[in-house]
Amino acid sequence: MKYSKKERQKLLKQTIEDNPFITDDQLATKFNVSVQTIRLDRMELSIPELRERIKDVAAHNFENEVKTLPLDEIIGEIIDIELDERALSIFDVTEDHVFQRNNIARGHHLFAQANSLAVAVIDDDLALTVKSTLSFTRPVHAGDRVIAKATVTSRDDNNRTFVSVTSTVNGTTVFTGDFEMYRTKGKGE
Amino acid sequence: MKYSKKERQKLLKQTIEDNPFITDDQLATKFNVSVQTIRLDRMELSIPELRERIKDVAAHNFENEVKTLPLDEIIGEIIDIELDERALSIFDVTEDHVFQRNNIARGHHLFAQANSLAVAVIDDDLALTVKSTLSFTRPVHAGDRVIAKATVTSRDDNNRTFVSVTSTVNGTTVFTGDFEMYRTKGKGE
Repeated sequence: MKYSKKERQKLLKQTIEDNPFITDDQLATKFNVSVQTIRLDRMELSIPELRERIKDVAAHNFENEVKTLPLDEIIGEIIDIELDERALSIFDVTEDHVFQRNNIARGHHLFAQANSLAVAVIDDDLALTVKSTLSFTRPVHAGDRVIAKATVTSRDDNNRTFVSVTSTVNGTTVFTGDFEMYRTKGKGE
Repeated sequence: MKYSKKERQKLLKQTIEDNPFITDDQLATKFNVSVQTIRLDRMELSIPELRERIKDVAAHNFENEVKTLPLDEIIGEIIDIELDERALSIFDVTEDHVFQRNNIARGHHLFAQANSLAVAVIDDDLALTVKSTLSFTRPVHAGDRVIAKATVTSRDDNNRTFVSVTSTVNGTTVFTGDFEMYRTKGKGE
């Protein structure tokens, strides 16, 4: 389907906001235009190229934001975080993370990224996973970049915080996890 | 509570069958007798000491039993397996597996042991995790030996096999997981 330039640029902006890690190639395929057209669109919209977008977020240091654990204990790289609200991380799957036989990423690596993020998003000194429900919806392979989004969905009076994590590769959901987290304190205490 | 010698020896035999990795110290505490009494009981019952019991199972090579993946891809050490029925593995938690702050084992290591075992127990060339429900019931610490028991609970006509895993430390449940596994073939094909 072809869009008008105006429609395309509006959708392009929205698409990149939803998935900042989408490549120009992927955008060209999605909008059925040349890569050159996407580049021109980005210039007109003042959206930096992917490499710059990644550099921007990587330059930000989340050491002060994350309270529950040191950054080096997080599986994947935190790209955005708003405590007790949401968090985003990327995890690049390598040969080290897959089954030798079929090149499919092992479930515990996807779980580790999601679980780390569910811990990191909690605005507390201590957060422990109590229960978790996982779905592995699509196989992930070496070379894939997994983007996990954690959303705090609710809290109860029993020191529990509920976090939903959705992990995608190129915009396709590959994993979802619901986490019931235990924390010691209330918000802002 | 004190038992008669006959009762104690009967219970002792059962206890070691249920948990072959229990130490003489733990048995002595459990039965409220001296370690020396436990040793004499074991000699009378012809039950080897813990070190020998571990050596016995470690000497067994499960390379030919496990079909879904090479042994070195299993997290933990397989101690017993009956394909499409049950499997047992041990995992020794070290400083590498815990959160620095509180010495509590990270959830993805317990998940990795259980998920590995759920894959290994399947009598097929291919087994993939589809869904999983986890409960982390007690904190696990460095130095703990986690024994995971996987039981195949059912199969359906849709290439699904359901596996329940219970992980214990010194007989106390620390983790449970229910796994819905996808496989390619039927039993014995």
